[in-house]
Amino acid sequence: MIGADEPVSHVTHLEAAIDGTVLPHDRLQTLHEGRPLWVRYDLDAVRTAMTKEVVARRPPTMWRYEELLPVADPTRRATLGEGMTPLLRCDRLGRALGLTDLWVKDESQLPTGSFKSRGLSMAVSRANELGVSRLAIPTAGNAGGALAAYAARVGLEAYVFMPADTPIVNQYEAAYYGARAYLVDGLINDCGAVVRDGTDAMGWFDVSTLKEPYRIEGKKTMGLELAEQLGWSVPDVILYPTGGGTGLIGMWKAFGELAEIGWLVGERRPRMISCQAEGCAPISTAWAEGERFAETFADASTAASGLRVPAAVGDFMILDAVCESGGQARSCPEEDLLAWAQRGASLEGIGFAPEAGACLGVLERLVAEGAIDRDERVVVFNTGAAQKYVEVMGEGTALVQIELPVDWDALAGKP
Amino acid sequence: MIGADEPVSHVTHLEAAIDGTVLPHDRLQTLHEGRPLWVRYDLDAVRTAMTKEVVARRPPTMWRYEELLPVADPTRRATLGEGMTPLLRCDRLGRALGLTDLWVKDESQLPTGSFKSRGLSMAVSRANELGVSRLAIPTAGNAGGALAAYAARVGLEAYVFMPADTPIVNQYEAAYYGARAYLVDGLINDCGAVVRDGTDAMGWFDVSTLKEPYRIEGKKTMGLELAEQLGWSVPDVILYPTGGGTGLIGMWKAFGELAEIGWLVGERRPRMISCQAEGCAPISTAWAEGERFAETFADASTAASGLRVPAAVGDFMILDAVCESGGQARSCPEEDLLAWAQRGASLEGIGFAPEAGACLGVLERLVAEGAIDRDERVVVFNTGAAQKYVEVMGEGTALVQIELPVDWDALAGKP
Repeated sequence: MIGADEPVSHVTHLEAAIDGTVLPHDRLQTLHEGRPLWVRYDLDAVRTAMTKEVVARRPPTMWRYEELLPVADPTRRATLGEGMTPLLRCDRLGRALGLTDLWVKDESQLPTGSFKSRGLSMAVSRANELGVSRLAIPTAGNAGGALAAYAARVGLEAYVFMPADTPIVNQYEAAYYGARAYLVDGLINDCGAVVRDGTDAMGWFDVSTLKEPYRIEGKKTMGLELAEQLGWSVPDVILYPTGGGTGLIGMWKAFGELAEIGWLVGERRPRMISCQAEGCAPISTAWAEGERFAETFADASTAASGLRVPAAVGDFMILDAVCESGGQARSCPEEDLLAWAQRGASLEGIGFAPEAGACLGVLERLVAEGAIDRDERVVVFNTGAAQKYVEVMGEGTALVQIELPVDWDALAGKP
Repeated sequence: MIGADEPVSHVTHLEAAIDGTVLPHDRLQTLHEGRPLWVRYDLDAVRTAMTKEVVARRPPTMWRYEELLPVADPTRRATLGEGMTPLLRCDRLGRALGLTDLWVKDESQLPTGSFKSRGLSMAVSRANELGVSRLAIPTAGNAGGALAAYAARVGLEAYVFMPADTPIVNQYEAAYYGARAYLVDGLINDCGAVVRDGTDAMGWFDVSTLKEPYRIEGKKTMGLELAEQLGWSVPDVILYPTGGGTGLIGMWKAFGELAEIGWLVGERRPRMISCQAEGCAPISTAWAEGERFAETFADASTAASGLRVPAAVGDFMILDAVCESGGQARSCPEEDLLAWAQRGASLEGIGFAPEAGACLGVLERLVAEGAIDRDERVVVFNTGAAQKYVEVMGEGTALVQIELPVDWDALAGKP
């Protein structure tokens, strides 16, 4: 803890990702030239203010890295205890994939059961600090519930706009946490247009993916935690499911900042593998074609609802990170992703979401192609709880109605 | 970490709760005279081996208290990183209840989204250590998924028997984690009979609530964590939803053990409030009548599926803890519990399960009766994620279909 006059954060300014334009961070900001902003820090000051020993003694939440986060006043935080999710060694799943050093970072154990908590905790905290009282978001999955929860936590109003075919648990949770929840007869881009168009009439602040600068900083903590959990080293390969891409962008930023303050052991950085589903694969399509910007993906449709993002405003930031890291952007066949999620769950007891299933499907291919060696340290992100995907979770699972009295020979499989 | 020859646990024996009979802990044990067993430790040895400073430096899981837990060999643990759930200060909900020092311990952030993780992680770990290869459980809610997950984590077989009207997410998750999942046309006691009757034919080990001694030890960690999070002190009052009652029994045991090793600040112990729903209230009925043993509750029916336990084998252990603590066993009117859960969620952003809603309803009454003072430190346990209760989560929440283009005046509530 620090003195009351000393802000915990060391943000210096915001920087337009597309052209480097400098913007002040002491007021609300959205996009610049239609593209996202980076949050920049005085890393020399961070290096002096923050030590590994002090961080190790702090509570196990993402706020343990407060000097490298944008919220200046801890009392304005919207927090539900998010962060320091387990990093689980997975030998059984590793063997199934031909790997000896596989790990899963299980983001399903966050508030609201998904990784969306990190970004929205940070975005709501900064909006709260900057005096916003009403927030709005378009969502086709877990983001709406997370916004609703964090807005409730600090007494802000939340408006959530969802396609009418959004998974039912996501619909319910937004309303359950007290948000005004609306179903739109359209896709997520139609919901995004509603939020954009309503800004003047409704006086809300738009917390769409990457449209404000702070969700990246929340997602960045996945990279900070991963490095700390590995003794301030990084794995060889990270597989991450890419919808809007905030997490992949944020983790790559985290590794850069950690290297700059001298905390990372060694020079190595992980190869970042962006994973999508073939039913909605704008980033992997652009990567395959060597493009920095992605075309809108037509007729997007996938069982991994979080990957149903046909156009990502941060496409070039994702693709830059993938390319700088020597990674790849790939997609998993639609028919494999649920099967892999369920196989992973039955091998390790981790509730893999369909989006993480896409990562496992991509991983299988990369191992087969020789792009990942059997002894490399590989980390897969499970970004949400399977339990929230009730429409697809039952597929392929075997529930048997049993008659009483039980026929024990039949149950034991005896003839 | 310790040397390889030195067991981390300090268990000395098991003790029948009903008559004090001593039983050895180095083999599988179930009930004695139809009643549960206590796990007993050499607390003098624990006092020497474990220090608060060492515990504070360990990873944020329930295993940080390993000297006071029954698993001797850390390599046999079935772990998904469970424990150290957030203890969240809730000023807004406190004001709604007329309280100034209200906290919620949020067990929804555990693996599989419920507090069942703790007990089943411990039970599966000990079964694994003792050489069991097949486990079976009756469940009407979250326990089946938790067993399936932990069994998968260490490669054991799991059989799960559920009433056909078990919440759909609980049905799916058991199968998703690879358990053999069966739907029984009956109630949980019918499922319990199947598990009991099948022991010989199927060679499984019965991990029903309190039928093996180690689930209590897992649930005990809620009390250990709570004390650590409050600087090794305890609150004035704890409200806990009681189905089988393992958690309440376990926490009371934890406070006793902590007091005996001299870790608790002050002499005070919390008043334990056992909370049920009026639709299934065997424990609160027995408490009101001054009985130590509860009658089976007829025609049990409640929206809080985890409280639908008409007969608890540990009834006297629950009632002993409640009485020793100066607490109460109460029940919440059925019509209040979902409303309180949702109100709590919208005030604090915590995904209160219906069972925790019953606690909030009981808390409202106790404050009104003057049984809890406005400035007392009160802790409510949220034992599961609302998101897993899809059948009831939508009740009373307002999802609105909105037409495009949006009528902004109407949305803003202008005439």
